[in-house]
Amino acid sequence: MRRISIRISYDGTDYHGWQVQPGLRTIQSTIEQVLSTLDGKSVHLEGSGRTDAGVHALAVCAAFNLDNPIPTDNLRRALNRQLPPDIRILEATERPLDFQPRFNALAKTYEYRIWREEICPPFLQRYVHHHPYPLNEVDMIAAADMFIGEHDFTAFASADESDILGKSKVRRIFDARMWRHEEILHFRVRGSGFLKHMVRHMMGFLLEVGKENHLPEDLHYLLKGHPAKVPYSAPAQGLTQISVEYPLP
Amino acid sequence: MRRISIRISYDGTDYHGWQVQPGLRTIQSTIEQVLSTLDGKSVHLEGSGRTDAGVHALAVCAAFNLDNPIPTDNLRRALNRQLPPDIRILEATERPLDFQPRFNALAKTYEYRIWREEICPPFLQRYVHHHPYPLNEVDMIAAADMFIGEHDFTAFASADESDILGKSKVRRIFDARMWRHEEILHFRVRGSGFLKHMVRHMMGFLLEVGKENHLPEDLHYLLKGHPAKVPYSAPAQGLTQISVEYPLP
Repeated sequence: MRRISIRISYDGTDYHGWQVQPGLRTIQSTIEQVLSTLDGKSVHLEGSGRTDAGVHALAVCAAFNLDNPIPTDNLRRALNRQLPPDIRILEATERPLDFQPRFNALAKTYEYRIWREEICPPFLQRYVHHHPYPLNEVDMIAAADMFIGEHDFTAFASADESDILGKSKVRRIFDARMWRHEEILHFRVRGSGFLKHMVRHMMGFLLEVGKENHLPEDLHYLLKGHPAKVPYSAPAQGLTQISVEYPLP
Repeated sequence: MRRISIRISYDGTDYHGWQVQPGLRTIQSTIEQVLSTLDGKSVHLEGSGRTDAGVHALAVCAAFNLDNPIPTDNLRRALNRQLPPDIRILEATERPLDFQPRFNALAKTYEYRIWREEICPPFLQRYVHHHPYPLNEVDMIAAADMFIGEHDFTAFASADESDILGKSKVRRIFDARMWRHEEILHFRVRGSGFLKHMVRHMMGFLLEVGKENHLPEDLHYLLKGHPAKVPYSAPAQGLTQISVEYPLP
């Protein structure tokens, strides 16, 4: 048996997110089906994390076991031939048998993009959130910086995430930055890990800062394990997972 | 009654081309439906030309008569609110009552894009033709140049175009240029007018030159009213109509 990791890029618009869900078209199930035909038996694809319906990926990682002795370059080509064009395999790599794309990840990076002008080009509208209304971008940029560091992100966790086991909601954000480039307001965040819906809740909060419903300073208490969830979530389509980083082999 | 022209941008992927066809979703019928709700009666939208199913437009022109006294800026906003996000109205302009977007056009520009590398990004695949196989791009660039000038494009006309009336197939190409920029091979052509399917047949022929099934010099006879149609047509999704030009008011 071999352990193979793949780097995957996808346009999430026409999928119900990463994770297999009965009767729904998802990224994981679409790739698993193709892998299973290659190996002649059911193959389980283990992701580096999940993305919500409509979220995109520039390059995420997943891994699977394979019996087929096909060289990795041929495997990449065979997968791309059978997958729909909105999912692409960028690379396939041989790994140690104990490689776990989720637990071995050192860092993940996400980017959120907001189109700020009245008319959003048809060729970009799948990949940005269109918000042409006034925003205090100076305050948003200041607030984005404040996410850097180790914080308790309880307030930014998904409301449906189980708290029963009392799992830690502390995450380390290595870098968080917002900037405006022409018509697009970008928010890029790199961290050790992210809770379910966390980036969309962070961006939702930043939008409330932009609308002056919150001050950047509100993060002082919101990032200290504040028990109430922020009720803001930015739309999925503006979000792209940029990368997942692993230790050098 | 007023005569209004609109500049329209669209992603043609999910439409059966420009022209109204019973039971099919087209650009023309989608915009006509919204215009008709605005004016409380059926509105006919006259295009500057037709695009095939899957062809895109950066900025094309169309015109209609309207009784509603709504200012043009508000009209643009009202249309964009009701249209799907893959069709955008860039501008609405008051015109003389005799303005005809098709017959008043001075020039049209199209661009065809070919993705030349093995892996076509999911975020671009709707807007390029993916051809990662060997092509003699030097010969293609030489052949593209030869389209410039006034020629009889009978060989590049659609096979289903009626020849009964013996309408002239002579068209003037002001500029035609192919160039490679990073992973993309571009072909841009600007002319007085184009026959149905003409740009896709031109690009289809250029691809045959790239595959060395034709020499650039074959254009010497093909552009002199050669009666047999070239049997090559490049896929619609790589084609975008860039602009339509009109006389200054």
